[in-house]
Amino acid sequence: MPHEFELIDQIVAGLGKSEGLVLGPGDDCALTDLRAGHALASSIDCFVPDRHFPRDADAWFIAGRCFRAALSDLAAMGARPKFALIALTVETSDQAWVQAFTEGIRDTAVKFECPIAGGNLSKGPMNMTFSVHGEVPMGQALTRSGAKTGEDVYVSGILGGAARGLAQVRSMKPTSREAIHTLAETSPDHPLVRYWLPEPRLALGQSLIGIASAAIDISDGLLADAWHIAKASGTGLRLQASCLPEIGEIASSDDYELLFTAPRQMRARIESLRERVTRIGETCAELGVWLGDEPVSEFATGFRHFSA
Amino acid sequence: MPHEFELIDQIVAGLGKSEGLVLGPGDDCALTDLRAGHALASSIDCFVPDRHFPRDADAWFIAGRCFRAALSDLAAMGARPKFALIALTVETSDQAWVQAFTEGIRDTAVKFECPIAGGNLSKGPMNMTFSVHGEVPMGQALTRSGAKTGEDVYVSGILGGAARGLAQVRSMKPTSREAIHTLAETSPDHPLVRYWLPEPRLALGQSLIGIASAAIDISDGLLADAWHIAKASGTGLRLQASCLPEIGEIASSDDYELLFTAPRQMRARIESLRERVTRIGETCAELGVWLGDEPVSEFATGFRHFSA
Repeated sequence: MPHEFELIDQIVAGLGKSEGLVLGPGDDCALTDLRAGHALASSIDCFVPDRHFPRDADAWFIAGRCFRAALSDLAAMGARPKFALIALTVETSDQAWVQAFTEGIRDTAVKFECPIAGGNLSKGPMNMTFSVHGEVPMGQALTRSGAKTGEDVYVSGILGGAARGLAQVRSMKPTSREAIHTLAETSPDHPLVRYWLPEPRLALGQSLIGIASAAIDISDGLLADAWHIAKASGTGLRLQASCLPEIGEIASSDDYELLFTAPRQMRARIESLRERVTRIGETCAELGVWLGDEPVSEFATGFRHFSA
Repeated sequence: MPHEFELIDQIVAGLGKSEGLVLGPGDDCALTDLRAGHALASSIDCFVPDRHFPRDADAWFIAGRCFRAALSDLAAMGARPKFALIALTVETSDQAWVQAFTEGIRDTAVKFECPIAGGNLSKGPMNMTFSVHGEVPMGQALTRSGAKTGEDVYVSGILGGAARGLAQVRSMKPTSREAIHTLAETSPDHPLVRYWLPEPRLALGQSLIGIASAAIDISDGLLADAWHIAKASGTGLRLQASCLPEIGEIASSDDYELLFTAPRQMRARIESLRERVTRIGETCAELGVWLGDEPVSEFATGFRHFSA
């Protein structure tokens, strides 16, 4: 069985050279610098097998899906990725698994220009934590708390695909990397693509700076995350069921689309964006979330880790 | 059983107000800004029960010990703590456990002026990950790679206490918070204090900027971490066994002292430092680590997660 340090060396070597870091993996800390006039946006996300991903899936898929989901938090703030730190806990030191995991991390880091600045390897029940960091122009980050009464509500992409993808993942044999890449090119809305290769809306988030009044990424489900904006902003969100760009259960989690609000005078600018966004409702003075005329209970929806 | 969001609210409320953050817990990302002329030092550490701490210990002790150990990486770079992110995975939502854990985090954050900027809560086998971030003057961070031939080697504090503390922890009933605080005041070198309240050498690390040529914190054991400096610097470290400030097995892990090198002309400045440091050897041209005349094998020492 390899020594911990050798496994770490294998992982660091597999990640390749990281551009944009002052000092990357291999010391007690990574070192980075920020561009002048920018704040640092930071988030941490933890992923557990059979809760966030199927335990026996190819580690390349697991790494990509979790890393992308973590990056989605940067998208929601309008931040541009700067670096990530990863803590991996695994029971065994299966070198093939570690190699596939490392390749999944490397491919995702390259695609989204988010180098791995450091990490930690422990032995124990499988658990992976991503700490992602990005730059956002000072004082201009998109938050959950800026929505005002009488604004429009938008969502990016499509909803419900990831949950349908998970159902397919559970009933199908593992997909190969080649198969999912081909599927992603030909059918980007395919549930398996939506599940395994969720797209953090980084470009959209950055382009919404100065346009959106509030934003969140949909990780807990549209209705739960609408409640998060409502409570943080002290406003209501009335969503029109007929407008929703859904291909599955809208209250399901894991879509990693952006839900955002914007003043009406921004409609033309939003329609001119390159990304697919759909206007799905409006904000109102009364605190709450409505789907059509039906009020949505704050705790009735979304993904619940600690529910019975 | 409480909803995940309610548990998170409980934790955030328990942490109290965080000074120094632009935007703290409660949005998709935390926001911070750096002082001009400073780089960001970042590290991630993961802790697993019965590997890094006794599973059934009071959660206040667990939280403090793990958070302090994570902060030690900032000390090793000469960085001043700025903020931390915490990912917690637990099987149950035992509110008393969560409250004790939160209090341990809060007390440590206050003591070391490192506010909690955000976190993540998941359900699963217990696992806690700390992502810590600090500021260090640009271009002046202490790294592992700066040691040169003919320099002095130093270590802070004492060695081996934490391992003896762990043996006591295993054979004794849980210590109360009051008892450990009293012990820390009267006997700061007591093994139980060394184990439960390891002292990240943050002030020492910052004061070594411009003095030390290389530094590392001793988390894997003196000899393993001496090897880390040796390999990163391309030099050798000859340690004198008779000089070591030890109260236990020196190859044991978890002491969180600083091991550092410095040119001889820095002796007077180092002796005038307020912190306890001991000169324990010197660097040499040949790559390796020696204890007296005995060469130390690179993989023979230190804490190994994946050893059989």
